[in-house]
Amino acid sequence: MTDNPDLKEFWEARPLMLPSVSIDCVIFGYYDNQLKILLLKYKNTDCYALPGGFINQDENLEDAAARVLNERTGLKDIYLEQFYVFGDKDRRFDATHHKLMNGSGIILKADHFLLNRFISIGYYALINFSKATPMPDVFSDSCTWHDLNLVPSLIFDHDSILEKALHTLRKNLDEKLIGPNLLPETFTMNEFQNLYETILGEKIARSNFQRKILGLHMLKRLDKKITGGAHKAPYLYCFDTKTASKP
Amino acid sequence: MTDNPDLKEFWEARPLMLPSVSIDCVIFGYYDNQLKILLLKYKNTDCYALPGGFINQDENLEDAAARVLNERTGLKDIYLEQFYVFGDKDRRFDATHHKLMNGSGIILKADHFLLNRFISIGYYALINFSKATPMPDVFSDSCTWHDLNLVPSLIFDHDSILEKALHTLRKNLDEKLIGPNLLPETFTMNEFQNLYETILGEKIARSNFQRKILGLHMLKRLDKKITGGAHKAPYLYCFDTKTASKP
Repeated sequence: MTDNPDLKEFWEARPLMLPSVSIDCVIFGYYDNQLKILLLKYKNTDCYALPGGFINQDENLEDAAARVLNERTGLKDIYLEQFYVFGDKDRRFDATHHKLMNGSGIILKADHFLLNRFISIGYYALINFSKATPMPDVFSDSCTWHDLNLVPSLIFDHDSILEKALHTLRKNLDEKLIGPNLLPETFTMNEFQNLYETILGEKIARSNFQRKILGLHMLKRLDKKITGGAHKAPYLYCFDTKTASKP
Repeated sequence: MTDNPDLKEFWEARPLMLPSVSIDCVIFGYYDNQLKILLLKYKNTDCYALPGGFINQDENLEDAAARVLNERTGLKDIYLEQFYVFGDKDRRFDATHHKLMNGSGIILKADHFLLNRFISIGYYALINFSKATPMPDVFSDSCTWHDLNLVPSLIFDHDSILEKALHTLRKNLDEKLIGPNLLPETFTMNEFQNLYETILGEKIARSNFQRKILGLHMLKRLDKKITGGAHKAPYLYCFDTKTASKP
């Protein structure tokens, strides 16, 4: 199917994969009041996609998700969370698979496993994009952060997968404290609120936010920020490592 | 493999199933301050299990979950919600599958699809058990409600699946209003609190509960309950159909 030794090795390993199941990773990145999403662009195509892949027969699902993300983007040590399983009966994308593989010089045979129906398990993560340097894999021209307001149209049903992940991220903001790794070590309540507003994509009432966040008992109040003569210097906060859990 | 025509038909349909993926249903039942769980007991064994099954090649995942529940328990028109995917690499249960099928007079061949690894997608529901009459399927001696405090040890990893479903049910109590279909048409705040306490398995402070629930604006307060001469007759409530969503 191909003379490229990397790709040959990739395809020869396929019989070791669990049939019918795939993984798609939705990696959100936050930094400095911006929310971004990590996308691959397939080689010699205009096709943008979430990083995804398959599960080895002898591999735990969670390990597969971490490996797939690493193989396709270079990122590692990221806490991935399951959010939804996409199982529509028409999740088979023959024409697009042919196009994607043609871009890498591969002709798929009619019985190729990629042309089967796949049920896809969605994982998501929220990381600090200023600290992550993604790298494209062997099938991709690029692997880059895209502003969430300027996402190109995605292949397969990846638009719906992204939408569901964003919905889950926003819904979970109420349950989980996010912030460690996304903010500097010490921060003002205003900076913390900006993080939440950026993710929610809307303004939040200041007093409600402060009451709710402090009610979670996960922040420690430090000295006031030295701003040089301001009457209303804001307090600085940090995460209380005794009570704050990982994001 | 078997002379029973029902079972023959069942097994002959297997090539139409999606390989590697199964579904397990955790059906919680509430009625009158009791929380129960629906379990199957396999024929001629002491094996208790959650009702589960497989996905047809031409079937949406959600439709498969509804069909599996119906085929195995007789229940229908139940809103099932995905809660987690169980994907450990050692999810293959050869000895138990042999035992379960032997109970129905079936000898599994060494290459039978049941002996493969399966990734299982968990669905759960909470229903009124006084209105549901489950029926065992062709593989089961019984399909009955069990008190959640008296659950027998389950086959495969079904103990973990049940535990995760219960955790999800309890976690989601804070996000979703439950109650329609579980309570009579009108009820007191006390009856409503009993429902929550039964599901949580713990007492809740009365004033906090009332404030929180009323803050959701999903209940309508009606006249006081006529109790015949009590000074402190409690108010009756009903769900406000304009704002209350389905459970």
